[in-house]
Amino acid sequence: MVHTSGIGSHTAPVSDPLQGYLEANKQRFVRELVELCAIPSEASDPTALDAAATWCRDRLASAGCSARILRVVDAPALVVGETGSGKRTLVGVQHYDVQPAVPLALWQTPPYEPAVRDGAVYARGVDDNKGHLLLRIQAIEAHRAVFGELPIRIRFLIEGEEESGSSNLGRLLALHPGLTDGDGALKEGGAIDAAGRPQLSLGGKGILYCHFRVRTMSRDAHSGGATHYPNAAWRLAHALASLMDERGRVRIAGFYDDVRRPTDAERRMVAEAPFEPQAMKEILGIERFAFGRGDEDVRYAAVFEPTCNVCGIESGYNGPGSKTVIPCEATAKVDFRLVPDQDPMKIATLLRAHLDRSGFDDVVFSAEEGEHPYRGAADSPLVRAVKAVAEQEFGKPAVLVPNSGGTSPMWVVCNARKMPNVTLGMGHPGAGAHAPNEHILLENYWRALRATTKLYSLFATQA
Amino acid sequence: MVHTSGIGSHTAPVSDPLQGYLEANKQRFVRELVELCAIPSEASDPTALDAAATWCRDRLASAGCSARILRVVDAPALVVGETGSGKRTLVGVQHYDVQPAVPLALWQTPPYEPAVRDGAVYARGVDDNKGHLLLRIQAIEAHRAVFGELPIRIRFLIEGEEESGSSNLGRLLALHPGLTDGDGALKEGGAIDAAGRPQLSLGGKGILYCHFRVRTMSRDAHSGGATHYPNAAWRLAHALASLMDERGRVRIAGFYDDVRRPTDAERRMVAEAPFEPQAMKEILGIERFAFGRGDEDVRYAAVFEPTCNVCGIESGYNGPGSKTVIPCEATAKVDFRLVPDQDPMKIATLLRAHLDRSGFDDVVFSAEEGEHPYRGAADSPLVRAVKAVAEQEFGKPAVLVPNSGGTSPMWVVCNARKMPNVTLGMGHPGAGAHAPNEHILLENYWRALRATTKLYSLFATQA
Repeated sequence: MVHTSGIGSHTAPVSDPLQGYLEANKQRFVRELVELCAIPSEASDPTALDAAATWCRDRLASAGCSARILRVVDAPALVVGETGSGKRTLVGVQHYDVQPAVPLALWQTPPYEPAVRDGAVYARGVDDNKGHLLLRIQAIEAHRAVFGELPIRIRFLIEGEEESGSSNLGRLLALHPGLTDGDGALKEGGAIDAAGRPQLSLGGKGILYCHFRVRTMSRDAHSGGATHYPNAAWRLAHALASLMDERGRVRIAGFYDDVRRPTDAERRMVAEAPFEPQAMKEILGIERFAFGRGDEDVRYAAVFEPTCNVCGIESGYNGPGSKTVIPCEATAKVDFRLVPDQDPMKIATLLRAHLDRSGFDDVVFSAEEGEHPYRGAADSPLVRAVKAVAEQEFGKPAVLVPNSGGTSPMWVVCNARKMPNVTLGMGHPGAGAHAPNEHILLENYWRALRATTKLYSLFATQA
Repeated sequence: MVHTSGIGSHTAPVSDPLQGYLEANKQRFVRELVELCAIPSEASDPTALDAAATWCRDRLASAGCSARILRVVDAPALVVGETGSGKRTLVGVQHYDVQPAVPLALWQTPPYEPAVRDGAVYARGVDDNKGHLLLRIQAIEAHRAVFGELPIRIRFLIEGEEESGSSNLGRLLALHPGLTDGDGALKEGGAIDAAGRPQLSLGGKGILYCHFRVRTMSRDAHSGGATHYPNAAWRLAHALASLMDERGRVRIAGFYDDVRRPTDAERRMVAEAPFEPQAMKEILGIERFAFGRGDEDVRYAAVFEPTCNVCGIESGYNGPGSKTVIPCEATAKVDFRLVPDQDPMKIATLLRAHLDRSGFDDVVFSAEEGEHPYRGAADSPLVRAVKAVAEQEFGKPAVLVPNSGGTSPMWVVCNARKMPNVTLGMGHPGAGAHAPNEHILLENYWRALRATTKLYSLFATQA
C-alpha cells in the first residue's frame, strides 16, 4: 500500500486538457513509478534486470507502442519500443539498470521499498534513471489521450548496462542497423539547477576505465631487504605519479592531440550556465579547488578538459599497527574522462606507450570500459523545441551545457548521423543520484511530464 | 605427552662431562622448550605475555639466578635475571614475545602446540626467540653443574615488546640505570648459514615506522569532477614517489648526512660473508634485483645503506568491477631502515621538512616506531670469545656481519658504553622466523647450547 497523500496537485485551469488528464491519472502514474523502482535492477542481479526489462516492454505496449526485447549473449536486454509516424524521428536513449544501493545503512528508508513523502519519491534509481524513463512513456500515453496520435516517430532504446559502461550497446545496435536512424536523441536524465532553470545537456564526456596491476615478486618480503627487493607499491605509486603533473596536466604524450577546441558559442554557453564555486567547495568541505585552479578556470575545465583520476589503489599491509613488509603486488583503478574528439582505445594505446617509455613495462593494465565522448549541435530543431517546452513548463530560461562531466552512451547512438541530443529532465541539485536517499520531487516530475508530452508534437514541426 | 624420539644424541666421548650432562638432561630441556613455546605470547595477548614473563623469571631462578620483574604502566614486563661474579659482565638481551602466528591455515601443526619431529621443534617463536632465550638459561645451569660457579657476572634482560618495536625498553632501562652496565651484550637470535658456518651479527639497522594519511575532502566525489576536486590517492602517490628516485636513492634532504662510512675492515667482513644472489632471487621469484642494482652492489648495500620502503597503501574503491570515484582519503605505511649513525627522530624531522618543501603539507604522518641503529666493534674480547666457541662447536669458520638488515634494540642497551654485541645462535636459513612452520633443528640447538656454556667461562678471561 503506497501512501500517496504527498503527491500534490497543480492549480491548473480546467480548460487545460493535458493538466486534466494528469490530475486524473497522477495516483496511477506514481504507483507505476513505485512499482518500477521496487525492482532492484543492479548489475549483479540478472533476474531483477530481466524483470525491469520486461516491465518496461509491457509499459511501452500499454502506452500504445510496439515493443520488443533484443539480446546478445550474457548482456542485459535492450528494450525497443516504437510508436507514431511523421517526417521526424526522435530516439529516446534510456536505461533501466541502477547503481548499487550500498551502503544500505545510510538510507532513511530501504532503497527498493520506494517511499512517497512530502511531495518526493525516495528509491534507488528514481532519479537515475527510472523516473526519467517512465515519464517519457507516460507522456506518450498522455499525448495520445489528449492530443491524439503522435505526428512523429518515437523510438525508445532502453538499455540495462548504462551504469556499468554500456559495454554491449554498440554491439546490440550494430546487429539492428536501423535503430539509430533519427533526427535527434532525447538523452537520459536531466536536471533543474539551483535557480530552478532547466539545464539542457548536449552531450557527455567519454571514458576509459583501467585496472592496473604490478607484481614484482612471487611473495611479500621482509623489509630488511628493501635495498634490493622490488616493491610493487613503489612501482605503482611512481607509475601513477608519472601520469599527471601537479597542475593536473596529463603527461601521456599525445593525450591532448584530438581534443576539440571549444567554439566561441560553446564558451558562451558555459559562461552563461549556472556555476556556484562556493557551494561546490562547501559540499565537499574544501577551501580551494585542486591543482591551484581558480574558479573561472574550473568553470571551463569541467566542461572542456579531459581528466586522469585514481579511483582506488591498494597494496601490502593496511591493518592495525605496523608490519614491515615489501609488497609483491599492487593494484589500482584509474579513469580517464574524455572530451570530443578523443577515442578511448587510442588513449589506451598512448597510455601503454607512456608506461613503456617511462620504464614501467612491468605495470600492466586492462581497459575495462571505454566510451566515446559526444557533443551534439546546440543549433538544431530538437534543442530549440526542448528549450521552448522546458521554459514554458518550468517558467525559467533554460541553460545549455555543451557536455556534462559524466558519461553516457550517446556516441554509439548519435555519432554516425551527427544527431543532436539533449536532456529534458526533472532532477534537482540534491537528488542524490548514485548516493543514498536518492529521490525526485513530484512537482518537477509533473512539469517534466507536461513538457515532454508537448515536445512530442512540437518537435514534429519545429524549424 | 611430548614425543621425544627425534631429540637425537651426539656420539661424544664419555670423557666430555658437558656432553654427559646434556645427554642426561636433553629430554627435560626439550620439554622446557615445548612448555615455553606453548605460551601464545603475542602482543595482543597480555595474559600470555605475563605468563611467559613469569615462566622466564622462574626458569632463571631454577638455574640459580636472582630474578625479578620490572614494569612500567601498560607495557609488558621486563624480566631481569643475574648470576655469577667476576671482572666482566655479559648482558643477555632477549625477548619472550613472538610474532602473530597468522595465517594459521598455513601451519602443518598448530603454532602453540609445539611438535617435535625428525630432529626439529615446530612452534611459533621457537627460533625467534624462545629457543635462543632458553638455551642461554640452560647453559647457566649446565655451567654450574659441570664447571662450577660462573667466573663472570651475567645479566639477562628479557623484554616482551621486541616484535612491536621495543617501545618501552628504553624507559624501563632508564628507571634502573645500572642494568646496562657491562662489557658486552649477547644479542637475541643468531643463525648458521647455508654452508653451516656460524653467522655472528654485530648489530642491526634502526627503524622509523610511519603511518601516512591524506584527507582532501569531507567525502568521496564523482569522478566527473576530476578537473578540480582534490584526489587523496593522487596526493599520496605523488608524495610517496617524491621520497625516493628510481635508483632507490632517498630524496629527503639530509637523509644521508649521518650515515657512518664503513671501514675497510667492515667492507672486508661483508666481502667474506656468505652471499648467494641467485638463491635470493629464486626465493622471491625475481630475475634481477631492484633499482638496477648488480649483485656486488646489493651485497654491500644490504648492510651499509638505509632504505625507504612502502609497507602498504590504500585509498578509494578496490572492490570488483569499477567505480568512478575521487577518493577523499588515502593512507600508507612506510618504514625507513637506518644505519649508524642515523637517528630516527631526526629522520622524522627531515621527512616533515621534505614534504612541506615539496608542497605536500596536506600529507600528515605519525612516527609509530623508532629505534636507533647499532653496530658494535668486531675487534673485542666478546666477539673473539664467541668466534672461538662457535667455530669449535659448529666445526666451521665463523662469519662476521657488521649489522643485519633487520632491527633489534641494541642501541638502548649498548650505546652509552659503546659495548660490543654479537649473536651466538642456532637458527638456519629455512627456520621460518615470522612465518608459518617456524622451527629449529635440535642438532644446532645442542651445539649452540654447548658453545654458550663454554662462552661463559671463556669471556671471563678472553683478551
